[in-house]
Amino acid sequence: MSIFTKIIEGEIPCYKVAEDDNYIAFLDINPNAKGHTLVVPKKEENKLFDLSKEDYLSLMDFSYRVAKALEKAVSCKRVCTSVIGLEVPHVHVHLVPTNAMEDIQFTKKVKLTNDEFVALAASISSEFE
Amino acid sequence: MSIFTKIIEGEIPCYKVAEDDNYIAFLDINPNAKGHTLVVPKKEENKLFDLSKEDYLSLMDFSYRVAKALEKAVSCKRVCTSVIGLEVPHVHVHLVPTNAMEDIQFTKKVKLTNDEFVALAASISSEFE
Repeated sequence: MSIFTKIIEGEIPCYKVAEDDNYIAFLDINPNAKGHTLVVPKKEENKLFDLSKEDYLSLMDFSYRVAKALEKAVSCKRVCTSVIGLEVPHVHVHLVPTNAMEDIQFTKKVKLTNDEFVALAASISSEFE
Repeated sequence: MSIFTKIIEGEIPCYKVAEDDNYIAFLDINPNAKGHTLVVPKKEENKLFDLSKEDYLSLMDFSYRVAKALEKAVSCKRVCTSVIGLEVPHVHVHLVPTNAMEDIQFTKKVKLTNDEFVALAASISSEFE
């Protein structure tokens, strides 16, 4: 069971941004930048392009809605996106409010307090449509 | 006019992988890894999430088909994807055959000869459905 499935099943807490029957979005707790969010399908699959095209497009649709909420809640030049998955073998779309290339390179990390994470998740969630 | 529009209009050559009425995919000439491909909408738009959801999902659909071809043509652990766009203000989806994190960080670059680019583009193109 992946760490994301444990989050989905409530065994591990998260700063939740959005959820429906098939997807959940929550803040990355080791963020590249403030507002770095992960969008995860509840059905555990390792690789993005092993999803059926239908499931892939449905995940991309949900990610688009989260990205639009992020744009409203977090000031940045643009929301960038990446799907890598070398560390956690459960598909996750990174959405990163980006101001500079280093924000999307996974080398620079920023620290937030618990209160900051809670407020940020609530702010993004309130913009989710 | 972006450099990608110049490619689309044939003013600048490219190692083309796939094309239809709305999208083109070609090899990145400064690749992170062998097979690094860019998928570009022919209609010039700066930011991914400024596309309408319909246009965004259509681009993602085309990208999925290119990624599946890449998986068949180029040996790698997985095809990773990223949309950044800080350098060229014309939406482009990076598809990168990835074996290690550095392949998707845009820091390490690999060199290919013209003949290698031509053969690679032909190989990926032959798998495109």
